[in-house]
Amino acid sequence: MQKLIECVPNFSEGRRISVINKIADSARKVKGVRVLDVEWDKSHNRSLMTLVGEPGKVARAVFEAIKTATNLIDMTKHKGEHPRIGATDVVPFIPVSGVTMKECVLLSNGLAKRVSKELKIPVYMYEASAKKKSRQNLADVRKGEYEGLKEEMGTNPERKPDYGPSKMHPTAGAMVIGARKYLIAYNVNLDTKNIRIAKNIATKIRERGGGLPKVKALGFNVQGFAQISMNLVDFEITNFDEAYRAIEKEAKKYKVNIKSSEIYGMIPLEALVRQIRTTFKAVDFDADRVLEKRIYE
Amino acid sequence: MQKLIECVPNFSEGRRISVINKIADSARKVKGVRVLDVEWDKSHNRSLMTLVGEPGKVARAVFEAIKTATNLIDMTKHKGEHPRIGATDVVPFIPVSGVTMKECVLLSNGLAKRVSKELKIPVYMYEASAKKKSRQNLADVRKGEYEGLKEEMGTNPERKPDYGPSKMHPTAGAMVIGARKYLIAYNVNLDTKNIRIAKNIATKIRERGGGLPKVKALGFNVQGFAQISMNLVDFEITNFDEAYRAIEKEAKKYKVNIKSSEIYGMIPLEALVRQIRTTFKAVDFDADRVLEKRIYE
Repeated sequence: MQKLIECVPNFSEGRRISVINKIADSARKVKGVRVLDVEWDKSHNRSLMTLVGEPGKVARAVFEAIKTATNLIDMTKHKGEHPRIGATDVVPFIPVSGVTMKECVLLSNGLAKRVSKELKIPVYMYEASAKKKSRQNLADVRKGEYEGLKEEMGTNPERKPDYGPSKMHPTAGAMVIGARKYLIAYNVNLDTKNIRIAKNIATKIRERGGGLPKVKALGFNVQGFAQISMNLVDFEITNFDEAYRAIEKEAKKYKVNIKSSEIYGMIPLEALVRQIRTTFKAVDFDADRVLEKRIYE
Repeated sequence: MQKLIECVPNFSEGRRISVINKIADSARKVKGVRVLDVEWDKSHNRSLMTLVGEPGKVARAVFEAIKTATNLIDMTKHKGEHPRIGATDVVPFIPVSGVTMKECVLLSNGLAKRVSKELKIPVYMYEASAKKKSRQNLADVRKGEYEGLKEEMGTNPERKPDYGPSKMHPTAGAMVIGARKYLIAYNVNLDTKNIRIAKNIATKIRERGGGLPKVKALGFNVQGFAQISMNLVDFEITNFDEAYRAIEKEAKKYKVNIKSSEIYGMIPLEALVRQIRTTFKAVDFDADRVLEKRIYE
Protein backbone atom coordinates (compact mmCIF):
# COMPACT_ATOMS: atom_id res chain seq x y z
CA MET A 1 0.00 0.00 0.00
CA GLN A 2 1.23 3.44 -0.92
CA LYS A 3 1.89 5.74 2.03
CA LEU A 4 -0.24 8.85 1.82
CA ILE A 5 -0.60 11.97 3.90
CA GLU A 6 -2.39 15.23 3.53
CA CYS A 7 -1.04 18.64 4.47
CA VAL A 8 -3.19 21.78 4.66
CA PRO A 9 -0.91 24.82 5.10
CA ASN A 10 -2.67 28.14 5.83
CA PHE A 11 -1.13 31.35 4.50
CA SER A 12 -1.82 34.96 5.51
CA GLU A 13 -2.69 36.07 2.00
CA GLY A 14 -6.23 36.08 0.64
CA ARG A 15 -6.23 39.10 -1.64
CA ARG A 16 -3.27 39.02 -4.04
CA ILE A 17 -4.11 36.04 -6.29
CA SER A 18 -0.68 36.23 -7.96
CA VAL A 19 1.01 35.62 -4.59
CA ILE A 20 -1.33 32.70 -3.80
CA ASN A 21 -0.57 31.18 -7.19
CA LYS A 22 3.19 31.54 -6.70
CA ILE A 23 2.96 29.75 -3.34
CA ALA A 24 0.91 26.90 -4.85
CA ASP A 25 3.27 26.64 -7.83
CA SER A 26 6.27 26.20 -5.51
CA ALA A 27 4.54 23.17 -3.98
CA ARG A 28 3.57 21.80 -7.40
CA LYS A 29 7.22 21.73 -8.46
CA VAL A 30 7.86 18.72 -6.23
CA LYS A 31 7.09 15.64 -8.33
CA GLY A 32 4.59 13.17 -6.92
CA VAL A 33 2.75 15.75 -4.82
CA ARG A 34 -0.74 16.86 -5.84
CA VAL A 35 -2.20 20.21 -4.93
CA LEU A 36 -5.83 19.12 -4.74
CA ASP A 37 -7.31 22.40 -3.72
CA VAL A 38 -6.49 26.09 -3.20
CA GLU A 39 -9.00 28.28 -1.36
CA TRP A 40 -8.83 31.90 -0.25
CA ASP A 41 -10.97 34.44 1.54
CA LYS A 42 -10.63 38.18 1.06
CA SER A 43 -12.06 39.33 4.36
CA HIS A 44 -9.99 36.77 6.26
CA ASN A 45 -7.05 37.71 4.02
CA ARG A 46 -6.04 34.10 4.20
CA SER A 47 -5.63 31.07 1.92
CA LEU A 48 -5.24 27.36 2.38
CA MET A 49 -3.95 24.59 0.17
CA THR A 50 -4.54 20.86 0.26
CA LEU A 51 -1.43 18.85 -0.67
CA VAL A 52 -1.45 15.08 -0.91
CA GLY A 53 1.26 12.51 -1.59
CA GLU A 54 3.97 10.44 0.04
CA PRO A 55 5.09 11.84 3.39
CA GLY A 56 8.64 12.91 2.47
CA LYS A 57 7.56 14.50 -0.79
CA VAL A 58 4.72 16.41 0.85
CA ALA A 59 7.14 17.76 3.47
CA ARG A 60 9.49 18.96 0.72
CA ALA A 61 6.64 20.54 -1.24
CA VAL A 62 5.27 22.38 1.78
CA PHE A 63 8.74 23.67 2.63
CA GLU A 64 8.98 25.17 -0.87
CA ALA A 65 5.56 26.80 -0.41
CA ILE A 66 6.62 28.19 2.99
CA LYS A 67 9.82 29.62 1.49
CA THR A 68 7.82 31.47 -1.17
CA ALA A 69 5.28 32.74 1.38
CA THR A 70 8.17 33.96 3.56
CA ASN A 71 9.52 36.00 0.65
CA LEU A 72 6.20 37.46 -0.48
CA ILE A 73 4.10 38.11 2.63
CA ASP A 74 4.84 40.92 5.07
CA MET A 75 3.13 40.45 8.44
CA THR A 76 3.91 44.01 9.54
CA LYS A 77 1.35 45.11 6.93
CA HIS A 78 -1.13 42.23 7.19
CA LYS A 79 -4.73 42.86 8.17
CA GLY A 80 -7.53 40.30 8.21
CA GLU A 81 -10.38 38.96 10.33
CA HIS A 82 -8.89 35.54 10.96
CA PRO A 83 -6.45 34.96 13.87
CA ARG A 84 -2.83 34.52 12.62
CA ILE A 85 0.75 34.74 13.84
CA GLY A 86 2.73 34.44 10.61
CA ALA A 87 2.98 34.52 6.83
CA THR A 88 2.67 30.75 6.82
CA ASP A 89 0.37 30.55 9.79
CA VAL A 90 -0.32 26.88 10.50
CA VAL A 91 0.83 23.63 8.86
CA PRO A 92 -0.93 20.40 9.89
CA PHE A 93 0.16 16.96 8.63
CA ILE A 94 -2.66 14.43 8.45
CA PRO A 95 -2.28 10.63 8.00
CA VAL A 96 -4.48 9.32 5.15
CA SER A 97 -3.42 5.73 4.50
CA GLY A 98 -0.56 3.46 5.51
CA VAL A 99 0.91 6.15 7.78
CA THR A 100 0.71 6.42 11.58
CA MET A 101 0.17 9.56 13.59
CA LYS A 102 3.65 9.02 15.04
CA GLU A 103 5.18 9.24 11.55
CA CYS A 104 3.34 12.50 10.97
CA VAL A 105 4.62 13.85 14.31
CA LEU A 106 8.20 13.00 13.26
CA LEU A 107 7.65 14.64 9.90
CA SER A 108 6.27 17.80 11.51
CA ASN A 109 9.34 18.04 13.74
CA GLY A 110 11.62 17.59 10.74
CA LEU A 111 9.88 20.42 8.92
CA ALA A 112 9.94 22.65 12.01
CA LYS A 113 13.71 22.16 12.34
CA ARG A 114 14.27 23.00 8.70
CA VAL A 115 12.02 26.09 8.80
CA SER A 116 13.66 27.43 11.95
CA LYS A 117 17.18 26.78 10.67
CA GLU A 118 16.98 27.75 7.02
CA LEU A 119 14.33 30.48 7.22
CA LYS A 120 15.03 31.73 10.80
CA ILE A 121 11.34 31.54 11.73
CA PRO A 122 10.28 30.63 15.31
CA VAL A 123 8.03 27.52 15.31
CA TYR A 124 5.46 26.23 17.81
CA MET A 125 4.38 22.57 17.74
CA TYR A 126 0.64 21.87 18.24
CA GLU A 127 -1.95 19.06 18.35
CA ALA A 128 -0.35 15.57 18.35
CA SER A 129 3.09 17.24 17.95
CA ALA A 130 2.69 19.57 20.97
CA LYS A 131 5.61 19.41 23.39
CA LYS A 132 3.52 20.92 26.20
CA LYS A 133 -0.11 20.27 26.98
CA SER A 134 -0.77 24.00 26.87
CA ARG A 135 0.15 24.03 23.17
CA GLN A 136 -2.15 21.25 21.95
CA ASN A 137 -4.89 23.72 21.14
CA LEU A 138 -4.24 26.03 18.20
CA ALA A 139 -6.21 28.94 19.75
CA ASP A 140 -3.92 28.88 22.81
CA VAL A 141 -0.75 28.96 20.69
CA ARG A 142 -2.12 31.86 18.63
CA LYS A 143 -3.25 33.93 21.65
CA GLY A 144 -2.62 37.65 21.07
CA GLU A 145 -2.01 36.94 17.40
CA TYR A 146 0.98 38.30 15.49
CA GLU A 147 0.96 41.65 17.24
CA GLY A 148 0.58 40.32 20.80
CA LEU A 149 3.00 37.44 20.38
CA LYS A 150 5.62 39.82 18.99
CA GLU A 151 5.55 41.71 22.30
CA GLU A 152 5.66 38.62 24.50
CA MET A 153 7.95 36.17 22.73
CA GLY A 154 11.30 37.48 23.94
CA THR A 155 10.21 38.22 27.50
CA ASN A 156 7.61 35.63 28.57
CA PRO A 157 9.18 32.13 28.93
CA GLU A 158 5.70 30.64 28.44
CA ARG A 159 5.77 31.88 24.85
CA LYS A 160 9.27 30.61 23.97
CA PRO A 161 9.05 28.75 20.62
CA ASP A 162 9.79 25.02 20.32
CA TYR A 163 12.24 25.62 17.48
CA GLY A 164 14.19 28.65 16.26
CA PRO A 165 14.89 32.10 17.65
CA SER A 166 12.76 33.67 20.43
CA LYS A 167 12.20 36.54 18.10
CA MET A 168 9.74 37.13 15.30
CA HIS A 169 11.05 36.86 11.74
CA PRO A 170 11.10 40.51 10.55
CA THR A 171 8.39 39.95 7.90
CA ALA A 172 7.18 36.36 8.16
CA GLY A 173 6.44 36.34 11.91
CA ALA A 174 6.06 32.91 13.55
CA MET A 175 4.54 29.55 12.58
CA VAL A 176 2.55 26.65 14.05
CA ILE A 177 3.34 23.14 12.79
CA GLY A 178 1.92 19.81 13.89
CA ALA A 179 0.11 16.58 13.17
CA ARG A 180 -3.57 15.90 13.62
CA LYS A 181 -6.25 13.48 12.59
CA TYR A 182 -8.34 13.96 9.49
CA LEU A 183 -11.23 16.31 10.16
CA ILE A 184 -14.58 15.67 8.50
CA ALA A 185 -16.80 18.72 8.09
CA TYR A 186 -20.37 17.44 8.10
CA ASN A 187 -23.64 19.40 8.01
CA VAL A 188 -27.14 18.08 8.65
CA ASN A 189 -30.08 20.17 7.41
CA LEU A 190 -33.38 19.91 9.26
CA ASP A 191 -36.77 20.24 7.66
CA THR A 192 -37.70 23.16 9.89
CA LYS A 193 -37.21 26.92 9.94
CA ASN A 194 -36.94 26.84 13.72
CA ILE A 195 -33.22 27.55 14.26
CA ARG A 196 -33.68 27.02 18.00
CA ILE A 197 -34.13 23.29 17.36
CA ALA A 198 -30.78 23.10 15.50
CA LYS A 199 -29.06 24.98 18.32
CA ASN A 200 -30.60 22.69 20.96
CA ILE A 201 -29.65 19.52 19.09
CA ALA A 202 -26.10 20.79 18.47
CA THR A 203 -25.68 21.49 22.19
CA LYS A 204 -27.03 18.04 23.06
CA ILE A 205 -24.98 15.93 20.65
CA ARG A 206 -21.57 17.64 20.88
CA GLU A 207 -18.79 16.42 23.16
CA ARG A 208 -18.78 19.66 25.16
CA GLY A 209 -22.42 19.00 26.15
CA GLY A 210 -21.71 15.40 27.15
CA GLY A 211 -22.76 14.08 23.74
CA LEU A 212 -20.73 12.27 21.10
CA PRO A 213 -16.96 12.16 21.68
CA LYS A 214 -14.77 14.11 19.22
CA VAL A 215 -17.74 16.02 17.80
CA LYS A 216 -17.95 19.80 17.64
CA ALA A 217 -21.37 21.13 16.64
CA LEU A 218 -23.19 24.45 16.18
CA GLY A 219 -26.72 25.31 15.13
CA PHE A 220 -27.09 27.75 12.22
CA ASN A 221 -29.63 29.39 10.00
CA VAL A 222 -28.80 28.45 6.41
CA GLN A 223 -31.07 29.96 3.77
CA GLY A 224 -33.90 30.09 6.27
CA PHE A 225 -33.54 26.49 7.39
CA ALA A 226 -32.06 25.01 10.55
CA GLN A 227 -28.64 23.43 10.10
CA ILE A 228 -26.38 21.54 12.48
CA SER A 229 -22.82 22.13 11.34
CA MET A 230 -20.21 19.72 12.70
CA ASN A 231 -16.51 19.05 12.81
CA LEU A 232 -15.79 15.38 13.39
CA VAL A 233 -12.22 15.55 14.64
CA ASP A 234 -11.67 11.79 14.88
CA PHE A 235 -13.93 9.70 12.64
CA GLU A 236 -12.45 6.53 14.11
CA ILE A 237 -14.24 7.52 17.33
CA THR A 238 -17.38 9.19 15.99
CA ASN A 239 -18.07 8.84 12.28
CA PHE A 240 -20.57 10.84 10.21
CA ASP A 241 -23.20 8.08 10.20
CA GLU A 242 -23.26 8.04 14.01
CA ALA A 243 -23.66 11.81 14.09
CA TYR A 244 -26.48 11.54 11.55
CA ARG A 245 -28.33 8.94 13.61
CA ALA A 246 -27.90 10.90 16.85
CA ILE A 247 -29.36 14.00 15.20
CA GLU A 248 -32.19 11.97 13.64
CA LYS A 249 -33.09 10.63 17.08
CA GLU A 250 -33.04 14.07 18.72
CA ALA A 251 -34.99 15.65 15.84
CA LYS A 252 -37.72 13.05 16.27
CA LYS A 253 -38.36 14.46 19.74
CA TYR A 254 -39.32 17.73 18.01
CA LYS A 255 -41.21 15.79 15.30
CA VAL A 256 -38.73 17.17 12.76
CA ASN A 257 -37.17 15.24 9.88
CA ILE A 258 -33.74 15.49 8.34
CA LYS A 259 -34.01 17.22 4.97
CA SER A 260 -30.50 16.52 3.71
CA SER A 261 -26.88 16.23 4.80
CA GLU A 262 -23.59 17.33 3.27
CA ILE A 263 -20.06 16.08 3.61
CA TYR A 264 -18.07 19.26 3.11
CA GLY A 265 -14.76 18.97 1.25
CA MET A 266 -13.12 15.59 0.97
CA ILE A 267 -13.41 12.39 2.97
CA PRO A 268 -10.97 9.49 3.30
CA LEU A 269 -12.16 6.13 1.92
CA GLU A 270 -11.67 4.65 5.39
CA ALA A 271 -14.52 6.79 6.77
CA LEU A 272 -16.89 5.44 4.10
CA VAL A 273 -15.77 1.91 4.84
CA ARG A 274 -16.27 2.26 8.61
CA GLN A 275 -19.75 3.60 7.97
CA ILE A 276 -20.62 0.49 5.92
CA ARG A 277 -19.48 -1.67 8.82
CA THR A 278 -21.69 0.23 11.29
CA THR A 279 -24.79 0.99 9.23
CA PHE A 280 -25.07 -2.46 7.64
CA LYS A 281 -23.45 -4.57 10.38
CA ALA A 282 -20.94 -5.63 7.73
CA VAL A 283 -18.23 -6.63 10.19
CA ASP A 284 -15.77 -8.05 7.67
CA PHE A 285 -15.92 -5.20 5.20
CA ASP A 286 -12.71 -3.26 4.57
CA ALA A 287 -11.18 -0.85 2.07
CA ASP A 288 -9.55 -3.67 0.10
CA ARG A 289 -13.01 -4.70 -1.05
CA VAL A 290 -13.31 -1.48 -2.97
CA LEU A 291 -12.42 -2.27 -6.57
CA GLU A 292 -10.77 1.06 -7.37
CA LYS A 293 -8.49 0.84 -4.34
CA ARG A 294 -7.24 -2.60 -5.38
CA ILE A 295 -6.46 -1.33 -8.85
CA TYR A 296 -4.51 1.76 -7.88
CA GLU A 297 -2.56 0.51 -4.88
CA MET B 1 -10.28 9.83 -15.40
CA GLN B 2 -8.69 6.50 -16.24
CA LYS B 3 -10.95 4.11 -18.16
CA LEU B 4 -11.42 0.90 -16.26
CA ILE B 5 -13.23 -2.34 -16.90
CA GLU B 6 -13.41 -5.66 -15.17
CA CYS B 7 -13.49 -9.05 -16.87
CA VAL B 8 -14.32 -12.29 -15.09
CA PRO B 9 -13.59 -15.23 -17.40
CA ASN B 10 -14.76 -18.67 -16.19
CA PHE B 11 -12.70 -21.74 -17.14
CA SER B 12 -13.69 -25.40 -17.00
CA GLU B 13 -10.77 -26.38 -14.77
CA GLY B 14 -11.02 -26.50 -10.98
CA ARG B 15 -8.73 -29.41 -10.11
CA ARG B 16 -5.32 -29.06 -11.81
CA ILE B 17 -3.84 -26.02 -10.06
CA SER B 18 -0.88 -25.94 -12.48
CA VAL B 19 -3.29 -25.42 -15.39
CA ILE B 20 -5.17 -22.67 -13.53
CA ASN B 21 -1.87 -20.93 -12.79
CA LYS B 22 -0.76 -21.14 -16.41
CA ILE B 23 -4.01 -19.52 -17.56
CA ALA B 24 -3.68 -16.70 -15.00
CA ASP B 25 0.00 -16.19 -15.90
CA SER B 26 -0.90 -15.70 -19.57
CA ALA B 27 -3.22 -12.84 -18.57
CA ARG B 28 -0.58 -11.36 -16.24
CA LYS B 29 1.88 -11.06 -19.11
CA VAL B 30 -0.09 -8.12 -20.53
CA LYS B 31 1.29 -4.98 -18.88
CA GLY B 32 -1.18 -2.73 -17.13
CA VAL B 33 -3.67 -5.51 -16.40
CA ARG B 34 -4.11 -6.74 -12.85
CA VAL B 35 -5.32 -10.21 -11.97
CA LEU B 36 -7.04 -9.31 -8.71
CA ASP B 37 -8.37 -12.70 -7.86
CA VAL B 38 -8.25 -16.36 -8.91
CA GLU B 39 -10.81 -18.77 -7.44
CA TRP B 40 -11.55 -22.41 -8.15
CA ASP B 41 -13.89 -25.15 -7.02
CA LYS B 42 -13.05 -28.85 -7.23
CA SER B 43 -16.58 -30.22 -7.34
CA HIS B 44 -17.62 -27.67 -9.95
CA ASN B 45 -14.28 -28.36 -11.69
CA ARG B 46 -14.30 -24.69 -12.60
CA SER B 47 -12.25 -21.56 -11.95
CA LEU B 48 -12.75 -17.87 -12.40
CA MET B 49 -10.38 -14.92 -12.59
CA THR B 50 -10.95 -11.23 -12.01
CA LEU B 51 -8.96 -9.03 -14.40
CA VAL B 52 -9.00 -5.24 -14.19
CA GLY B 53 -7.44 -2.52 -16.30
CA GLU B 54 -7.95 -0.36 -19.37
CA PRO B 55 -10.45 -1.86 -21.84
CA GLY B 56 -8.06 -2.70 -24.70
CA LYS B 57 -5.44 -4.20 -22.41
CA VAL B 58 -7.97 -6.33 -20.56
CA ALA B 59 -9.27 -7.67 -23.88
CA ARG B 60 -5.72 -8.61 -24.91
CA ALA B 61 -5.01 -10.25 -21.54
CA VAL B 62 -8.18 -12.32 -21.58
CA PHE B 63 -7.44 -13.46 -25.13
CA GLU B 64 -4.06 -14.77 -23.94
CA ALA B 65 -5.79 -16.59 -21.06
CA ILE B 66 -8.34 -18.10 -23.47
CA LYS B 67 -5.57 -19.30 -25.79
CA THR B 68 -3.85 -21.10 -22.91
CA ALA B 69 -7.13 -22.61 -21.68
CA THR B 70 -7.84 -23.79 -25.25
CA ASN B 71 -4.50 -25.61 -25.34
CA LEU B 72 -4.75 -27.18 -21.86
CA ILE B 73 -8.41 -28.10 -21.25
CA ASP B 74 -10.13 -31.00 -23.03
CA MET B 75 -13.92 -30.77 -22.83
CA THR B 76 -14.35 -34.33 -24.10
CA LYS B 77 -12.98 -35.45 -20.72
CA HIS B 78 -14.42 -32.70 -18.49
CA LYS B 79 -16.77 -33.56 -15.63
CA GLY B 80 -18.14 -31.14 -13.04
CA GLU B 81 -21.32 -30.07 -11.31
CA HIS B 82 -21.49 -26.62 -12.86
CA PRO B 83 -23.18 -26.07 -16.28
CA ARG B 84 -20.60 -25.38 -19.03
CA ILE B 85 -20.20 -25.48 -22.82
CA GLY B 86 -16.47 -24.92 -23.25
CA ALA B 87 -12.90 -24.80 -21.90
CA THR B 88 -13.29 -21.05 -21.54
CA ASP B 89 -16.94 -21.11 -20.67
CA VAL B 90 -18.11 -17.54 -20.25
CA VAL B 91 -16.37 -14.15 -20.54
CA PRO B 92 -18.23 -11.07 -19.29
CA PHE B 93 -16.88 -7.53 -19.68
CA ILE B 94 -18.04 -5.12 -16.99
CA PRO B 95 -17.76 -1.29 -17.01
CA VAL B 96 -16.15 0.03 -13.79
CA SER B 97 -15.39 3.70 -14.38
CA GLY B 98 -15.27 6.07 -17.33
CA VAL B 99 -16.53 3.34 -19.68
CA THR B 100 -20.04 2.88 -21.09
CA MET B 101 -21.89 -0.40 -21.55
CA LYS B 102 -21.81 0.26 -25.28
CA GLU B 103 -17.99 0.31 -25.24
CA CYS B 104 -17.99 -3.03 -23.42
CA VAL B 105 -20.40 -4.46 -26.01
CA LEU B 106 -18.03 -3.37 -28.80
CA LEU B 107 -15.09 -4.86 -26.93
CA SER B 108 -16.92 -8.17 -26.43
CA ASN B 109 -17.66 -8.35 -30.17
CA GLY B 110 -14.02 -7.65 -30.96
CA LEU B 111 -12.89 -10.47 -28.70
CA ALA B 112 -15.54 -12.85 -30.11
CA LYS B 113 -14.31 -12.19 -33.67
CA ARG B 114 -10.71 -12.83 -32.67
CA VAL B 115 -11.54 -16.00 -30.74
CA SER B 116 -13.63 -17.41 -33.59
CA LYS B 117 -11.07 -16.53 -36.24
CA GLU B 118 -7.75 -17.32 -34.55
CA LEU B 119 -8.87 -20.20 -32.31
CA LYS B 120 -11.75 -21.57 -34.43
CA ILE B 121 -14.12 -21.65 -31.47
CA PRO B 122 -17.88 -20.97 -31.96
CA VAL B 123 -19.00 -18.00 -29.84
CA TYR B 124 -22.42 -16.95 -28.52
CA MET B 125 -23.04 -13.35 -27.41
CA TYR B 126 -25.10 -12.87 -24.23
CA GLU B 127 -26.45 -10.20 -21.86
CA ALA B 128 -26.01 -6.64 -23.23
CA SER B 129 -24.11 -8.11 -26.22
CA ALA B 130 -26.88 -10.60 -27.15
CA LYS B 131 -27.90 -10.40 -30.82
CA LYS B 132 -31.21 -12.18 -30.13
CA LYS B 133 -33.46 -11.75 -27.13
CA SER B 134 -33.40 -15.52 -26.58
CA ARG B 135 -29.64 -15.33 -25.88
CA GLN B 136 -29.67 -12.61 -23.23
CA ASN B 137 -29.87 -15.14 -20.44
CA LEU B 138 -26.77 -17.28 -19.87
CA ALA B 139 -28.81 -20.32 -18.80
CA ASP B 140 -30.66 -20.31 -22.14
CA VAL B 141 -27.42 -20.13 -24.13
CA ARG B 142 -25.91 -22.99 -22.12
CA LYS B 143 -28.98 -25.26 -22.40
CA GLY B 144 -27.96 -28.89 -22.83
CA GLU B 145 -24.41 -27.98 -21.81
CA TYR B 146 -21.35 -29.07 -23.79
CA GLU B 147 -22.76 -32.52 -24.59
CA GLY B 148 -26.23 -31.37 -25.66
CA LEU B 149 -25.02 -28.35 -27.62
CA LYS B 150 -22.52 -30.54 -29.52
CA GLU B 151 -25.45 -32.61 -30.87
CA GLU B 152 -27.61 -29.62 -31.79
CA MET B 153 -25.22 -26.96 -33.06
CA GLY B 154 -24.85 -28.19 -36.64
CA THR B 155 -28.50 -29.15 -37.15
CA ASN B 156 -30.71 -26.73 -35.18
CA PRO B 157 -30.61 -23.19 -36.67
CA GLU B 158 -31.70 -21.86 -33.25
CA ARG B 159 -28.31 -22.89 -31.88
CA LYS B 160 -26.17 -21.41 -34.67
CA PRO B 161 -23.33 -19.44 -33.02
CA ASP B 162 -23.00 -15.65 -33.48
CA TYR B 163 -19.36 -15.99 -34.55
CA GLY B 164 -17.24 -18.83 -35.87
CA PRO B 165 -17.99 -22.32 -37.18
CA SER B 166 -21.29 -24.11 -36.42
CA LYS B 167 -19.22 -26.91 -35.02
CA MET B 168 -17.64 -27.46 -31.62
CA HIS B 169 -13.89 -26.94 -31.33
CA PRO B 170 -12.55 -30.54 -31.00
CA THR B 171 -11.30 -29.99 -27.41
CA ALA B 172 -12.29 -26.47 -26.30
CA GLY B 173 -16.01 -26.70 -27.21
CA ALA B 174 -17.88 -23.38 -27.46
CA MET B 175 -17.82 -20.05 -25.60
CA VAL B 176 -20.17 -17.35 -24.33
CA ILE B 177 -18.92 -13.73 -24.45
CA GLY B 178 -20.73 -10.53 -23.53
CA ALA B 179 -21.03 -7.37 -21.51
CA ARG B 180 -23.02 -6.92 -18.34
CA LYS B 181 -23.36 -4.60 -15.40
CA TYR B 182 -21.36 -5.05 -12.23
CA LEU B 183 -22.97 -7.66 -10.01
CA ILE B 184 -22.89 -7.18 -6.26
CA ALA B 185 -23.20 -10.36 -4.22
CA TYR B 186 -24.77 -9.37 -0.92
CA ASN B 187 -25.90 -11.57 1.97
CA VAL B 188 -28.01 -10.56 4.93
CA ASN B 189 -27.95 -12.81 8.00
CA LEU B 190 -31.01 -12.90 10.25
CA ASP B 191 -30.94 -13.41 13.98
CA THR B 192 -33.11 -16.51 13.74
CA LYS B 193 -32.66 -20.21 13.08
CA ASN B 194 -35.99 -20.31 11.27
CA ILE B 195 -34.89 -20.75 7.65
CA ARG B 196 -38.51 -20.48 6.52
CA ILE B 197 -38.40 -16.75 7.37
CA ALA B 198 -35.36 -16.19 5.13
CA LYS B 199 -37.05 -18.06 2.30
CA ASN B 200 -40.26 -16.06 2.70
CA ILE B 201 -38.42 -12.72 2.77
CA ALA B 202 -36.31 -13.70 -0.25
CA THR B 203 -39.45 -14.55 -2.20
CA LYS B 204 -41.06 -11.26 -1.19
CA ILE B 205 -38.19 -8.89 -1.94
CA ARG B 206 -36.85 -10.31 -5.22
CA GLU B 207 -37.87 -9.01 -8.62
CA ARG B 208 -39.43 -12.33 -9.61
CA GLY B 209 -41.88 -12.02 -6.71
CA GLY B 210 -42.77 -8.43 -7.58
CA GLY B 211 -40.23 -6.99 -5.14
CA LEU B 212 -37.11 -4.91 -5.79
CA PRO B 213 -36.11 -4.55 -9.44
CA LYS B 214 -32.80 -6.16 -10.50
CA VAL B 215 -32.59 -8.24 -7.31
CA LYS B 216 -32.26 -12.02 -7.23
CA ALA B 217 -32.65 -13.56 -3.77
CA LEU B 218 -32.73 -16.97 -2.11
CA GLY B 219 -33.16 -18.05 1.50
CA PHE B 220 -30.49 -20.36 2.92
CA ASN B 221 -29.38 -22.09 6.08
CA VAL B 222 -25.85 -20.89 6.86
CA GLN B 223 -24.29 -22.44 9.94
CA GLY B 224 -27.72 -22.93 11.47
CA PHE B 225 -28.86 -19.37 10.84
CA ALA B 226 -31.24 -17.95 8.26
CA GLN B 227 -29.54 -16.07 5.42
CA ILE B 228 -30.92 -14.14 2.48
CA SER B 229 -28.38 -14.39 -0.30
CA MET B 230 -28.72 -11.86 -3.10
CA ASN B 231 -27.35 -10.90 -6.48
CA LEU B 232 -27.85 -7.24 -7.20
CA VAL B 233 -27.51 -7.20 -10.97
CA ASP B 234 -27.79 -3.42 -11.37
CA PHE B 235 -26.83 -1.40 -8.31
CA GLU B 236 -27.80 1.80 -10.12
CA ILE B 237 -31.38 0.52 -9.89
CA THR B 238 -31.34 -1.32 -6.56
CA ASN B 239 -28.28 -0.84 -4.37
CA PHE B 240 -27.27 -2.91 -1.34
CA ASP B 241 -28.57 -0.38 1.18
CA GLU B 242 -32.04 -0.52 -0.36
CA ALA B 243 -31.99 -4.32 -0.20
CA TYR B 244 -30.89 -4.13 3.44
CA ARG B 245 -33.72 -1.80 4.38
CA ALA B 246 -36.33 -3.88 2.53
CA ILE B 247 -35.19 -6.99 4.41
CA GLU B 248 -35.11 -5.11 7.71
CA LYS B 249 -38.72 -4.03 7.16
CA GLU B 250 -39.90 -7.54 6.26
CA ALA B 251 -37.98 -9.11 9.16
CA LYS B 252 -39.71 -6.76 11.57
CA LYS B 253 -43.00 -8.39 10.66
CA TYR B 254 -41.58 -11.63 12.09
CA LYS B 255 -40.05 -9.73 15.03
CA VAL B 256 -36.62 -10.76 13.76
CA ASN B 257 -33.49 -8.57 13.67
CA ILE B 258 -30.66 -8.47 11.15
CA LYS B 259 -27.58 -10.04 12.72
CA SER B 260 -25.04 -9.00 10.10
CA SER B 261 -24.56 -8.50 6.38
CA GLU B 262 -21.72 -9.26 4.00
CA ILE B 263 -20.67 -7.76 0.71
CA TYR B 264 -19.14 -10.76 -1.03
CA GLY B 265 -16.13 -10.11 -3.24
CA MET B 266 -15.45 -6.59 -4.45
CA ILE B 267 -17.63 -3.55 -4.88
CA PRO B 268 -17.15 -0.47 -7.09
CA LEU B 269 -16.64 2.84 -5.30
CA GLU B 270 -19.71 4.18 -7.11
CA ALA B 271 -21.98 1.76 -5.21
CA LEU B 272 -20.63 3.07 -1.87
CA VAL B 273 -21.10 6.63 -3.03
CA ARG B 274 -24.70 6.05 -4.16
CA GLN B 275 -25.44 4.47 -0.82
CA ILE B 276 -24.18 7.60 0.98
CA ARG B 277 -26.49 9.70 -1.15
CA THR B 278 -29.50 7.52 -0.27
CA THR B 279 -28.87 6.64 3.37
CA PHE B 280 -27.78 10.11 4.44
CA LYS B 281 -29.76 12.20 1.92
CA ALA B 282 -26.40 13.59 0.81
CA VAL B 283 -27.59 14.67 -2.62
CA ASP B 284 -24.39 16.42 -3.74
CA PHE B 285 -21.99 13.68 -2.72
CA ASP B 286 -19.97 12.03 -5.47
CA ALA B 287 -16.89 9.87 -5.94
CA ASP B 288 -14.62 12.90 -6.45
CA ARG B 289 -15.08 13.71 -2.77
CA VAL B 290 -13.22 10.57 -1.86
CA LEU B 291 -9.65 11.60 -1.13
CA GLU B 292 -8.00 8.45 -2.48
CA LYS B 293 -9.84 8.70 -5.78
CA ARG B 294 -8.64 12.27 -6.30
CA ILE B 295 -5.07 11.25 -5.65
CA TYR B 296 -4.92 8.29 -8.01
CA GLU B 297 -6.94 9.53 -10.94
